[in-house]
Amino acid sequence: MRLRRISGTKEALAGYPDLVILEPSLYFGRWNKYFDNDNAIHLELGMGKGKFLNIMANKNPHANFLGVEFREEMVHKAVGRVEGNPKNIGFLWSNVENIREYFAPGEISRIYLNFSDPWPKKRHEKRRLTHGNFLKQYQVVLSPGGEIYFKTDNKEFFEFSLNEFANFGFFLKNITLDLHRSQFKGNIMTEYEERYSSFTPIYRCEASLLTNAK
Amino acid sequence: MRLRRISGTKEALAGYPDLVILEPSLYFGRWNKYFDNDNAIHLELGMGKGKFLNIMANKNPHANFLGVEFREEMVHKAVGRVEGNPKNIGFLWSNVENIREYFAPGEISRIYLNFSDPWPKKRHEKRRLTHGNFLKQYQVVLSPGGEIYFKTDNKEFFEFSLNEFANFGFFLKNITLDLHRSQFKGNIMTEYEERYSSFTPIYRCEASLLTNAK
Repeated sequence: MRLRRISGTKEALAGYPDLVILEPSLYFGRWNKYFDNDNAIHLELGMGKGKFLNIMANKNPHANFLGVEFREEMVHKAVGRVEGNPKNIGFLWSNVENIREYFAPGEISRIYLNFSDPWPKKRHEKRRLTHGNFLKQYQVVLSPGGEIYFKTDNKEFFEFSLNEFANFGFFLKNITLDLHRSQFKGNIMTEYEERYSSFTPIYRCEASLLTNAK
Repeated sequence: MRLRRISGTKEALAGYPDLVILEPSLYFGRWNKYFDNDNAIHLELGMGKGKFLNIMANKNPHANFLGVEFREEMVHKAVGRVEGNPKNIGFLWSNVENIREYFAPGEISRIYLNFSDPWPKKRHEKRRLTHGNFLKQYQVVLSPGGEIYFKTDNKEFFEFSLNEFANFGFFLKNITLDLHRSQFKGNIMTEYEERYSSFTPIYRCEASLLTNAK
């Protein structure tokens, strides 16, 4: 989906210094200083308009939530949805490719991948956020025992991802092939999920690091 | 499915001492003596008419194959299909519940579960051959790094099984949600699979023991 570019968005993002981290590499290895606590840091990669992250941050005051999104209009929308003055949420206007520059080894406890672009063509496989090349980056920034929570409505992408997780040493658990008709409790829906989950099954799994293998 | 009882089958089974092991507990801990070699032992639980096991034994002369089946008519059919005089195959007319009596800890390298009864009703959950109570038995008889190869056409049973494997410490890998339209090479079809795989997707996974946890 190509979004209309809203002029002045970049400047608008700079107007939210408490929510948008324009130079995340400044906090490499010291995100606890950014949040002013030692709580676990959860990272959503490709957060879109940030609905999921906002709800998660609101429901879990004892964890910190960072969202990464490269489409600046989306970041702007996510910022606009923040209610009150939460201290445990922040947005990075950036590419997922760069996360190693922003996070020190072991700094992240959990990564969320919600309805990432499935890049269905074989020649685009490396762009999938569950491709091994990305998993190797996640392995570095995740803490020992760190985990990835993944959901998608694309069966082929789900299957690909399960095997990438397994091939890169992640332990798979809590797998469901139809999240909305499963026993799973406490699912927070993304905007995309709200629109499509009545038409198509949602696949979900968790993948955890056995060791902090590099 | 209730099979017509063929009178005289039991007597007929006794007529194949080289293929049917009527007292498998006699070989507890010494199946290498039965096969007269130290090759890996693969075990199919609920082998039905034995097509899969016969083909596997034929294709893999350097492994040993045992099939467990409690329906004596099925065992009889499986025996009738053995061609030539293979030394690496044997049939146990028995219940899966008893495998701990037949195999010493670590004696089995791989277990196959092909289209096991899904027992769809919740109250029959414990009868599913991937229920945790069974997995605990498999963990004992499997060698360190031993594995389970599982396939089914029942989506709910597959999902249940994935999570039982994960919950009991098995490492999941090579998962496919549509075996016959996947990249998987070398699939040996069961009779059931030949009949139904063109109408319904076949789910398959491998689950391996990380440690020989008891």
